[in-house]
Amino acid sequence: MKNIAVIGLGIMGLPMAVNLVNAGFMVAGFNRSQAATDKLAAAGGRGATSIADAVKDADAVITMVPDSPDVEAVVSGNDGVFANACKGTLWIDASSIRPDVAKRLSDDATAAGLRPLDAPVSGGEQGAIDAVLSIMVGGTAGDFADAADILGAVGKTIVHVGPSGSGQTVKAANQLIVAVNIEALAEAIVFLEAYGVDTDAALKVLGGGLAGSKVLEQKGQKMLDRNFDPGFRLALHNKDLGIVTAAAREAGVAVPLGAAVAQLVGSLVAQGDGGLDHSGLFKQAAALSGRK
Amino acid sequence: MKNIAVIGLGIMGLPMAVNLVNAGFMVAGFNRSQAATDKLAAAGGRGATSIADAVKDADAVITMVPDSPDVEAVVSGNDGVFANACKGTLWIDASSIRPDVAKRLSDDATAAGLRPLDAPVSGGEQGAIDAVLSIMVGGTAGDFADAADILGAVGKTIVHVGPSGSGQTVKAANQLIVAVNIEALAEAIVFLEAYGVDTDAALKVLGGGLAGSKVLEQKGQKMLDRNFDPGFRLALHNKDLGIVTAAAREAGVAVPLGAAVAQLVGSLVAQGDGGLDHSGLFKQAAALSGRK
Amino acid sequence: MKNIAVIGLGIMGLPMAVNLVNAGFMVAGFNRSQAATDKLAAAGGRGATSIADAVKDADAVITMVPDSPDVEAVVSGNDGVFANACKGTLWIDASSIRPDVAKRLSDDATAAGLRPLDAPVSGGEQGAIDAVLSIMVGGTAGDFADAADILGAVGKTIVHVGPSGSGQTVKAANQLIVAVNIEALAEAIVFLEAYGVDTDAALKVLGGGLAGSKVLEQKGQKMLDRNFDPGFRLALHNKDLGIVTAAAREAGVAVPLGAAVAQLVGSLVAQGDGGLDHSGLFKQAAALSGRK
Amino acid sequence: MKNIAVIGLGIMGLPMAVNLVNAGFMVAGFNRSQAATDKLAAAGGRGATSIADAVKDADAVITMVPDSPDVEAVVSGNDGVFANACKGTLWIDASSIRPDVAKRLSDDATAAGLRPLDAPVSGGEQGAIDAVLSIMVGGTAGDFADAADILGAVGKTIVHVGPSGSGQTVKAANQLIVAVNIEALAEAIVFLEAYGVDTDAALKVLGGGLAGSKVLEQKGQKMLDRNFDPGFRLALHNKDLGIVTAAAREAGVAVPLGAAVAQLVGSLVAQGDGGLDHSGLFKQAAALSGRK
Repeated sequence: MKNIAVIGLGIMGLPMAVNLVNAGFMVAGFNRSQAATDKLAAAGGRGATSIADAVKDADAVITMVPDSPDVEAVVSGNDGVFANACKGTLWIDASSIRPDVAKRLSDDATAAGLRPLDAPVSGGEQGAIDAVLSIMVGGTAGDFADAADILGAVGKTIVHVGPSGSGQTVKAANQLIVAVNIEALAEAIVFLEAYGVDTDAALKVLGGGLAGSKVLEQKGQKMLDRNFDPGFRLALHNKDLGIVTAAAREAGVAVPLGAAVAQLVGSLVAQGDGGLDHSGLFKQAAALSGRK
Repeated sequence: MKNIAVIGLGIMGLPMAVNLVNAGFMVAGFNRSQAATDKLAAAGGRGATSIADAVKDADAVITMVPDSPDVEAVVSGNDGVFANACKGTLWIDASSIRPDVAKRLSDDATAAGLRPLDAPVSGGEQGAIDAVLSIMVGGTAGDFADAADILGAVGKTIVHVGPSGSGQTVKAANQLIVAVNIEALAEAIVFLEAYGVDTDAALKVLGGGLAGSKVLEQKGQKMLDRNFDPGFRLALHNKDLGIVTAAAREAGVAVPLGAAVAQLVGSLVAQGDGGLDHSGLFKQAAALSGRK
Repeated sequence: MKNIAVIGLGIMGLPMAVNLVNAGFMVAGFNRSQAATDKLAAAGGRGATSIADAVKDADAVITMVPDSPDVEAVVSGNDGVFANACKGTLWIDASSIRPDVAKRLSDDATAAGLRPLDAPVSGGEQGAIDAVLSIMVGGTAGDFADAADILGAVGKTIVHVGPSGSGQTVKAANQLIVAVNIEALAEAIVFLEAYGVDTDAALKVLGGGLAGSKVLEQKGQKMLDRNFDPGFRLALHNKDLGIVTAAAREAGVAVPLGAAVAQLVGSLVAQGDGGLDHSGLFKQAAALSGRK
Repeated sequence: MKNIAVIGLGIMGLPMAVNLVNAGFMVAGFNRSQAATDKLAAAGGRGATSIADAVKDADAVITMVPDSPDVEAVVSGNDGVFANACKGTLWIDASSIRPDVAKRLSDDATAAGLRPLDAPVSGGEQGAIDAVLSIMVGGTAGDFADAADILGAVGKTIVHVGPSGSGQTVKAANQLIVAVNIEALAEAIVFLEAYGVDTDAALKVLGGGLAGSKVLEQKGQKMLDRNFDPGFRLALHNKDLGIVTAAAREAGVAVPLGAAVAQLVGSLVAQGDGGLDHSGLFKQAAALSGRK
């Protein structure tokens, strides 16, 4: 594994590609807009002129795009990954998409002679920059083993969770937990503010007990400060909650709190706040209580 | 501060009293059943024969009983703490009760010449045994300072969060967050099991990202094992969710997820599972999905 | 049964008193503000100067005030109904209050020698004016029979539902159903508007099938017109939802939709819309969808 | 309009076809199982041997099948309605399916030279037998006018609600309202039973006020009797709630109660109760309260 293609050089894809360069891989990147490709070139990678150009010599292809249709668009057709990558190439989809689409595309990839892994990540832009992403990987054990060096260059907690599609399933569960934990914290803070409690002190003691969480650590102060600069945008979290609630319904699994928070997030996005960090769910909790 | 009375030597009160003995305090304990008093005596404390006997020489009185009416019962009347403790005694209520009752009893205590602190704890039986409780304290700064040695002998994260009643308010918020985080985890695990994912691996990678929490660390494996030995009982958590939802309503604060989880917990208790650990909320999530 | 006292001549109490006058009863009314008493006098009743003055010759006393503490205030004490009405007088509380308070006050009334009925009503101001209220009555069968003429003068559907307190329990259930049905309609209309459907036609066809309801008949057009003039105010409905959710929790009954709508109503009241008709819940449904 | 083809002779389709025969139309019916076709023949219709055979001379084709894929299956392909019906034929889809699929198939029908109406119905098996269905129709005003006689032979409240797809959108809203109203009633009855109220009397008085609804009329007694023979099956209502919650999410519309009831219904179906009448949602409300 020496040559890597990265398709999609956005907020996440670019720093991942740069970290691969820094780890000694030969990286060819492709992005619809030229600016991102230039940044990769400046960091020591190669700016490819097309998907076909990016993947032609690749031992592994990483795709990192926003949603299910975007992945379909870059892998399918005459210009896509499947038609242009060599047989035996690893295809690592780091995007967060629907598990059923991941499963179907994995089958297509296998039929095209590629070796698919679905490998969505958690940790955000900062985690991508610092190469400390959590990566939940679906696919065969052999392909997972072969991808170890590559994933190790961009992440820290890297776990094989089952066959193709499983990575996306775990990512969906991750997004459910995160959204519910954020809303729990938001409700608690609005409640504490309404009672005039010292909220700085309260967050400190809450963090020391069973209420402690990464969400409390990373989002509590943002809520107290009403600072909802992203970070991970509500619009994307809304997409993910659509994925997890639909997948739960498909499997006959009741997720009452997941469904409730999906309503709250969807509502906030409908009100125009999709560009806020997902901690901005606090705004909803406050507004529902007639507060700010 | 040398002589401490502890009223209520249950699962929490007894180990707290023992830790005070071990820290060098003179501890007189009272409990309705003799067995607990004997255990305190065996550990080096004094078994008192009545509340009056326990508090007569105390510099500080700690009460640790289940619910609002229990606190009222032990502090009020001719036989209660207020009528029998010396003027100037610190009264530290470590019970988890309604913030409005805490406020009212604090006023009564002040009128009786005592110095009240509401100081509910988080951390459970193990935290009490290990003297690592989180303690959220309401009252005056001066009384909080005077209680530092005592609270330091039973807890680790000890924070002054505001005037009388504030400790209970923060505890209420704590219980809201914990319940919601438990249910989020339960929904996620049922979802993952339904899709046949490797759940041990999944919990590992979820714990490494933004979904990580104390609840995931301490309750995830219990859910995978279907081991709901308490720990903190659902019946008590149900009581606490009644407190927080009523207090939220009183203040005009919307807590949609808090209210939803209160329904789920109340429902499980109504079905006869109040004696399970609160991680037993998983049973409800599984049953709602036709799973076990 | 000839002489009736009516305590509380508000939006509901005044037209009820007038209808009693019109039915041939001798009616003495008392209200804190003089204006309402004058209106009763103009309609042929007698304006009493105090509760004692109103009830002194009464065969039956009707109380019609906003909330549990208001009922307690008018019946208790030296100036109240219980101390001044003759033994054997029927006491008909038409207010909507907590079932447990109704039960307790009924016991007090019985102890004072009165014959209590809790008889909350449904049907609103127009129903009161038209004497077509639904009345749900708790108390003994004998007292219910004796009150038949009186209740028949102000209502149309008058049903004995059980012992003391039962009337209030049924009223609580009524308010749960009404609130949930209103929110269901509001969600449906926002949904239909978002899809550009002909909503006038849609309400017509919805009303003809299993979705048909009094709420749809009486509130659908108000929602289409964004006309939320009260009618029955959200602030009062919020009070009632507090009653029913607390009573449900007390009895170990899960009311997930009742609890959810209580959050939505409470939230709207917190935002300052308590003075709107309860169909104004539509505003909340619209706002949550980023619409108006 | 003289010759009608009916594709799908199930619980709903067969009585609709028979009512068309009774109204004087020439009706050719097709069903996958022969038994239903025989019943139509016995009632005076013609049993067709294929879809092509059924539609060859039809002025209008009615399709009445369970779900979106079923409609796609009977209209598409060489053997389907679109390939075999004459140009200008009215296609009336009485099935309840996704609005976006209805819109797409309407476009396909128009491209094939047919005139599409989406015309889902409400009223259940009894409504179909009695020819009193409510029918919500999407399509052009001209096609709606041309279908008047046909729809009038099977329904009573027949309303044009907008362009193609609108009928399904209104049906989705109908199913949301019905499910929420059923759950509201179920919660209220469990609450009343827990308090020992006379529930027969209570339903009578509730039905007389603002809580009155078709659901209360038709489903209240079934709940008191624990008689959940279908009627309209929970499994189908679950499908419909999936449609309406997905369509709401697509449009950015928050339906918090709709989403909550979808969880409750989905949960009951997952537990194996999909074959019960939708009033069987009562079982869920009771079980959540530890009652039967």
